[in-house]
Amino acid sequence: MEKTLIFGHKNPDTDSICSALVYADLKTKLGENVEAVRLGPINGETEYALNYFNVEAPREVNTVANEAKKVILVDHNERQQSADDITEVQIAEVIDHHRIANFETSDPLYFRAEPVGCTATILKKMYEEHGVEIEQKIAGLMLSAIISDSLLFKSPTCTERDIEAAKELAAIAGVDVEAYGMEMLKAGADVSGKSVDELLSQDAKQFQMGQAKVEIAQVNAVGVEDVLVRKAEIEEALEKVIAERELDLFLFVVTDILTNDSTAIAAGKAAKSVEQAFNVSLDQNQCVLKGVVSRKKQIVPSLTEALSK
Amino acid sequence: MEKTLIFGHKNPDTDSICSALVYADLKTKLGENVEAVRLGPINGETEYALNYFNVEAPREVNTVANEAKKVILVDHNERQQSADDITEVQIAEVIDHHRIANFETSDPLYFRAEPVGCTATILKKMYEEHGVEIEQKIAGLMLSAIISDSLLFKSPTCTERDIEAAKELAAIAGVDVEAYGMEMLKAGADVSGKSVDELLSQDAKQFQMGQAKVEIAQVNAVGVEDVLVRKAEIEEALEKVIAERELDLFLFVVTDILTNDSTAIAAGKAAKSVEQAFNVSLDQNQCVLKGVVSRKKQIVPSLTEALSK
Repeated sequence: MEKTLIFGHKNPDTDSICSALVYADLKTKLGENVEAVRLGPINGETEYALNYFNVEAPREVNTVANEAKKVILVDHNERQQSADDITEVQIAEVIDHHRIANFETSDPLYFRAEPVGCTATILKKMYEEHGVEIEQKIAGLMLSAIISDSLLFKSPTCTERDIEAAKELAAIAGVDVEAYGMEMLKAGADVSGKSVDELLSQDAKQFQMGQAKVEIAQVNAVGVEDVLVRKAEIEEALEKVIAERELDLFLFVVTDILTNDSTAIAAGKAAKSVEQAFNVSLDQNQCVLKGVVSRKKQIVPSLTEALSK
Repeated sequence: MEKTLIFGHKNPDTDSICSALVYADLKTKLGENVEAVRLGPINGETEYALNYFNVEAPREVNTVANEAKKVILVDHNERQQSADDITEVQIAEVIDHHRIANFETSDPLYFRAEPVGCTATILKKMYEEHGVEIEQKIAGLMLSAIISDSLLFKSPTCTERDIEAAKELAAIAGVDVEAYGMEMLKAGADVSGKSVDELLSQDAKQFQMGQAKVEIAQVNAVGVEDVLVRKAEIEEALEKVIAERELDLFLFVVTDILTNDSTAIAAGKAAKSVEQAFNVSLDQNQCVLKGVVSRKKQIVPSLTEALSK
């Protein structure tokens, strides 16, 4: 039986890494031949979680068609967020919690998207559906993914199901959710050692919105000042990325994990759409998005609407 | 609470009608405000099933945005197979068993596609997941959908799960699967009273394949001769539809429910792609597709591949 690769999106966050590892565990226990891989570097937050639960990171790959005929996508479905050669393999399954776009298959498949805050919340249900017991470290990975995606349950993407799942998983993992969660988030929010390139690429995703090609990068921080002191350098880098990838808009979002507000820097010829989308004024390309922590629920829909008019 | 409309694809078949009715039953029992509707006329096979289990057909609608903000799609996801104004409403859920294409949302949603033979097979599982008892007539509708989509378990799209579900549903519905199934299929395969326009539209679906716009209509018959005697008239009608809808290919497929072979008539400037897709020669635009009964599994993937080269 040929091996099926399981992976999350490019610039992987904790959910993309952990859900790939977790689903590979479930599939392996169900007798399938799979391997979790990743499409980019491990960030500080994910590293904290993997170290805490003593789990090795998945192997990094750049292309997938050279080693597998079938793949399983977790935590994403949009083509441009996936492996560069994704059109050359058969997508056997998708487990996701995002909008569906730029996704197409020639054959029927198992596609499971649920409007919850985290892919791991869906995976936890799948362990139960299959009657497979969840090991301690696997519970820890799923818990980490939920804490990450929900910003410790503060994000509007967080649902009752995510909170319930996290509670049960914390019991299995043997950790205190609040204490573990804040330490993990802080590990990811330490921007001091990061280059501007890292800040812009670490959790960046591309979207097609109407006619516009948009990239949105988000970083968590404890206070936004550590990031904003480097604004000139950031803007220079943004212009470079925009030219390289022919983007209409790059939105760089710094989310304060203590206040749960975000500060955004907009660049590109469609930058003005940000004002319309969020009913704000850009002051030197910058604005505060009060109470905005979720790219998926608070940024992408509003921007898509503004850019589709 | 505003009403959510539930519907299957245009030119609805038995699965599209029954799955809309069935899912509306489940949702209603779960306390939601929904109504099953349909995007086209009821065919003879579906009529037989509805009469047998004494269930009223869903109301026919042409547009949906005028009466609902949210909709649920069953048995389809491709935009061109859905309501004409589908882009004006929010798609809250999709329950389907087809390939995914031409589908896009701005928000996360509940999307459940499984590679089984029939939407009703997925719905049956959902009753179990929610712990809702399946009534006799609801079991009858699901059974009818599975028999229809699987051509009484003869289609390669039919899975073990479909067969198992059908057995359990037949017990609840209180019918003999083979006897009921053959009567129902024959009711749908009676082509004598149908106009050529009806034959071409009754179960027609449009697909984008590579750069080509393709429409495939399928009718069941007991022996194909009753249909083929009207070939000249059919070809004239095909040319008209092709011109009207600017199609590159119209494939008209007549499936013999006794032999489980199909005869196809191809028209349009991409007609030759049929030869490549199925390794056959067209003789006066006509060919026999041995053992081909499934548009989804045997026709669409091969044609998509041939037309995407």
